[in-house]
Amino acid sequence: MTRLLMLLLIVALTISSATAEPFRKVLSSVKQNVQVGDWKLSPADAKLKGNWSVRQRELHGGKQDGVRIIEVDNGTLQMTVVPTRGMSILRVVSGEVHLGWNSPVKEVVNPKFINLQSKGGLGWLDGFNEWMVRCGLESAGHPGKDSFTNNVGDEATLELTLHGKIGNIPASEVQVIVDDKPPHRIRIRGRVDERSFYGAQLEIWTEVSTVPGSKVFRIDDVITNRGAAEQEFQVIYHANHGAPLMEKGARLLAPVKRVTPFNQYAAKSVATWDVYPAPTPGFVERVYCLYPLADADGRTLVMLQNAAADKAVSFAYPVKQLPYLTQWKNALPLGGGYVTGIEPGTGFPANRSVERKAGRVPKLKPGQSRRFTLDVGLHAGGAAVKAVAAKIKKIQGDQKVQVDTKTTIVK
Amino acid sequence: MTRLLMLLLIVALTISSATAEPFRKVLSSVKQNVQVGDWKLSPADAKLKGNWSVRQRELHGGKQDGVRIIEVDNGTLQMTVVPTRGMSILRVVSGEVHLGWNSPVKEVVNPKFINLQSKGGLGWLDGFNEWMVRCGLESAGHPGKDSFTNNVGDEATLELTLHGKIGNIPASEVQVIVDDKPPHRIRIRGRVDERSFYGAQLEIWTEVSTVPGSKVFRIDDVITNRGAAEQEFQVIYHANHGAPLMEKGARLLAPVKRVTPFNQYAAKSVATWDVYPAPTPGFVERVYCLYPLADADGRTLVMLQNAAADKAVSFAYPVKQLPYLTQWKNALPLGGGYVTGIEPGTGFPANRSVERKAGRVPKLKPGQSRRFTLDVGLHAGGAAVKAVAAKIKKIQGDQKVQVDTKTTIVK
Amino acid sequence: MTRLLMLLLIVALTISSATAEPFRKVLSSVKQNVQVGDWKLSPADAKLKGNWSVRQRELHGGKQDGVRIIEVDNGTLQMTVVPTRGMSILRVVSGEVHLGWNSPVKEVVNPKFINLQSKGGLGWLDGFNEWMVRCGLESAGHPGKDSFTNNVGDEATLELTLHGKIGNIPASEVQVIVDDKPPHRIRIRGRVDERSFYGAQLEIWTEVSTVPGSKVFRIDDVITNRGAAEQEFQVIYHANHGAPLMEKGARLLAPVKRVTPFNQYAAKSVATWDVYPAPTPGFVERVYCLYPLADADGRTLVMLQNAAADKAVSFAYPVKQLPYLTQWKNALPLGGGYVTGIEPGTGFPANRSVERKAGRVPKLKPGQSRRFTLDVGLHAGGAAVKAVAAKIKKIQGDQKVQVDTKTTIVK
Repeated sequence: MTRLLMLLLIVALTISSATAEPFRKVLSSVKQNVQVGDWKLSPADAKLKGNWSVRQRELHGGKQDGVRIIEVDNGTLQMTVVPTRGMSILRVVSGEVHLGWNSPVKEVVNPKFINLQSKGGLGWLDGFNEWMVRCGLESAGHPGKDSFTNNVGDEATLELTLHGKIGNIPASEVQVIVDDKPPHRIRIRGRVDERSFYGAQLEIWTEVSTVPGSKVFRIDDVITNRGAAEQEFQVIYHANHGAPLMEKGARLLAPVKRVTPFNQYAAKSVATWDVYPAPTPGFVERVYCLYPLADADGRTLVMLQNAAADKAVSFAYPVKQLPYLTQWKNALPLGGGYVTGIEPGTGFPANRSVERKAGRVPKLKPGQSRRFTLDVGLHAGGAAVKAVAAKIKKIQGDQKVQVDTKTTIVK
Repeated sequence: MTRLLMLLLIVALTISSATAEPFRKVLSSVKQNVQVGDWKLSPADAKLKGNWSVRQRELHGGKQDGVRIIEVDNGTLQMTVVPTRGMSILRVVSGEVHLGWNSPVKEVVNPKFINLQSKGGLGWLDGFNEWMVRCGLESAGHPGKDSFTNNVGDEATLELTLHGKIGNIPASEVQVIVDDKPPHRIRIRGRVDERSFYGAQLEIWTEVSTVPGSKVFRIDDVITNRGAAEQEFQVIYHANHGAPLMEKGARLLAPVKRVTPFNQYAAKSVATWDVYPAPTPGFVERVYCLYPLADADGRTLVMLQNAAADKAVSFAYPVKQLPYLTQWKNALPLGGGYVTGIEPGTGFPANRSVERKAGRVPKLKPGQSRRFTLDVGLHAGGAAVKAVAAKIKKIQGDQKVQVDTKTTIVK
Repeated sequence: MTRLLMLLLIVALTISSATAEPFRKVLSSVKQNVQVGDWKLSPADAKLKGNWSVRQRELHGGKQDGVRIIEVDNGTLQMTVVPTRGMSILRVVSGEVHLGWNSPVKEVVNPKFINLQSKGGLGWLDGFNEWMVRCGLESAGHPGKDSFTNNVGDEATLELTLHGKIGNIPASEVQVIVDDKPPHRIRIRGRVDERSFYGAQLEIWTEVSTVPGSKVFRIDDVITNRGAAEQEFQVIYHANHGAPLMEKGARLLAPVKRVTPFNQYAAKSVATWDVYPAPTPGFVERVYCLYPLADADGRTLVMLQNAAADKAVSFAYPVKQLPYLTQWKNALPLGGGYVTGIEPGTGFPANRSVERKAGRVPKLKPGQSRRFTLDVGLHAGGAAVKAVAAKIKKIQGDQKVQVDTKTTIVK
């Protein structure tokens, strides 16, 4: 009976999609040799009604010369995607709930001015100010030596750079799509290629989408091995939050089976991993490695809430896709980097050599893909936040949390 | 008598060139502060007749943002030059004969996105997809340490990067010239400067030219020392071929006095150096160092032919200009880099320190120039290919080939 | 009585500035998302009279693609500022007196093509051809290892690159201001940000200005710590001179209490530190570290004069701002780098680790600023040069010069 219903549903969808003609605008394309400049889309342009808009702007001046940003306003929620910086999401706002942070890096830096190898492989930090930047794809974690096979077949060492390249590669294809069918989901799609000879041959099709009037949006990405041989990949969704969510007394709510400090320094305060301190001069980052639990559908749900528990952001996603969750607590003084990263990933952000040894570096066969779907919600008001907290509590159920007092990640 | 004829010829040429007025278009010039965008030239524009065209296009999207390519169609042969990438030749096509290959790198990458020092000096591979890219000019070979004198007069070590800088420097002067006199040769000229303080002060004037209706084209370059002191230089013409020339059973025909494997791995299969294998998963590159023989005019002739010996590319050039020929066999699976490099050079592609010790790094005095002229032919049909093979055989004559079973290049 | 006059003056200035409305044009602004292209300003445009102009031009071709330069002509003196290269001053000309030099680097290189880490941290030299480039701000001296605290709180080593980053960062805000009040000073202002996460959070507001008809101009910069913690900074004003000022017999006149050779090589010829040799093949740079004396107002005055003592450039500035003066003698053959640097700084150009140990690396508290004001004069004619020489002699007075015969800087 269920199968019959499913079948009917598929048939219905196929018919409707055959007749459907979503609005589609190519903003940038290597294939078509197209680059649109400043551009704006209203519902009328897409032969639809509503109170939303999509806008592309080119930035000028300083290091942001030539960067393009896409601003989506769904009527309730505004979000900004940066095609020039690997389809990162610069910020998201819904009323009083803001996703983003006050980085010392003020400009949206064009990758042409970034040298990832600067400062011992920390050059990535020269452009780091997004709400969400993907780390990956060849490597996603800490800089430092890892081994690889070089062009003459020898085992060689290479110096990986912090969090990989994908966040500093301009997208090769960028499209805006608006579904012709209700609820007329607005989709910003971009393909970012990480390709080299004797190197990564990986592609990520990113999609950030939202439904007009809603307070949620979806990240829906597909990573594909475009090479002729099996290859490793890594991805971490590095989502960063300052005010108004991070503050003294803010909390991370997550159903977990285990919490492990990233290093011995973080181990000292593992007992209070889920609570945030006030801005603290001289604070050194504390990173905790979480193993999330899932509900019956295999989905986990985590939430960062402010001290009053009346503003929050939640992330819901299949644990199988992203089995590891990194929490980065960086309680530096305001303006210097008071920020917390909530980072679902295929692994933790240790150097790839460490991750490989721990079995946390997945592989893709030639042509094989893996999908990553995260639903992100912005919550305002005590009741809304409480409702999410209840769901998280339900996933945790009576399963105990193993809190490690020593690191097992970086020794 | 010969001298008198020569004199008359010079006088005649001087008169005709004095009255001659070739068509000339500056597409890019640092001196004139000019950058032409999309542009097209037909015979009528040059007050000529014929069935040819020249076209400049600016590329958009991804990493090829801002790259300019020049497409020449001589009516029979089409070739694409990339001023933004050191006047490299992206591809050449004449009917069924294609020069080029299927690199994992799909875009024509703007040098502003290339970091040559990436991955231990292998960053050059992030943009490597041309049919022909020049390696050089300060260094042309493998990455790794070499010694130099630094700014305080000390002997210091520097890390050379793979194949040098010249292929990732945008040309400073770019011109299209069409001879006013028959056969109305079409010339794409570009000057690329490799200049630094306390470093290389080298310039290369490149010219790629072809005669309307022909299946051959010429590379005619002049490298000049623009510094105040004597300096070393290196150049390797790294010409790369996939289908339809490279395939199982394809062969490299070359008149040689000696074949040396580049390393011990290549030594194992030195006996079959001239024959190509099928695409092979896990294949490791095999490089052979050839010492070409010349005809009575001092010119050598080498040819890469497909398995059926009915499609081929040939290179004819003075051996004195480019005494060393590198054959790079890289039989990886299709799409992953099934490619062979035919690489005439002033040396082999070992690290410059190795080449210097072997006496293969030439020098230029201040103001001194060296010219490099290669005639490249595309051949279709068994008879045409056979005719070239016969010429090669004639140059070899009865001179024996010394095939080394141990490397003398990289120990 | 003096205080009363001062008070009246301040009141007068305040009133006039309250009613004043200087001409102001924003040429580039991250804040306003503005980038002006080619542009010209005449006195009439600013509702003024006179014989001066300001002009912005965008450069094309080669490595200078996209660079913008601002040319100021005050009627007597012409100077060129490069916003794209950290507000460097490319050249200054007044009649027969030229400030600048003949670098092997011919183009005004866009930082997008510069890799500071190239050649063991000497990549800065690939774009070095300005009359004056600021070195700094996180570091200003020689490349090599220095220690820093990394993102996980560990003491790590980083490789500093030669002369720091600020000269290769495009300005974020660029303005042209012309005072509405006589003498209608023309000001080119630009803000350059050196910002990173876990790194420098420094800003420099640069101003280069001149009064119509004068042969002097002023550099007036303010460096501010925009971070939340105290941080070190360094700045060196690296002003470089070739012909017609530098030549055999040219001299540097400076009131100093001490001259120290930078290294043992320079020590050999410390006795003739102030005199310049002819171009010399194979010359190795000689660097002398000077400790300038000041007049009663705390200002020093130094001058580089040609052999005939009828052309010169002078620098006047408060010694407290820039207590150390580096003289760089690089008498390479013409075209190869016959140049002398006159370099007032907060320290000498040794590696920061050396400078720190010697107490020459200042710090700024959060929000704290330091100002640097240099008045540069171009002098033509023996009388004019002699007058400056007399002032310098007066500052020296009868104070003896300690000339070290061994280096105390780099051992």
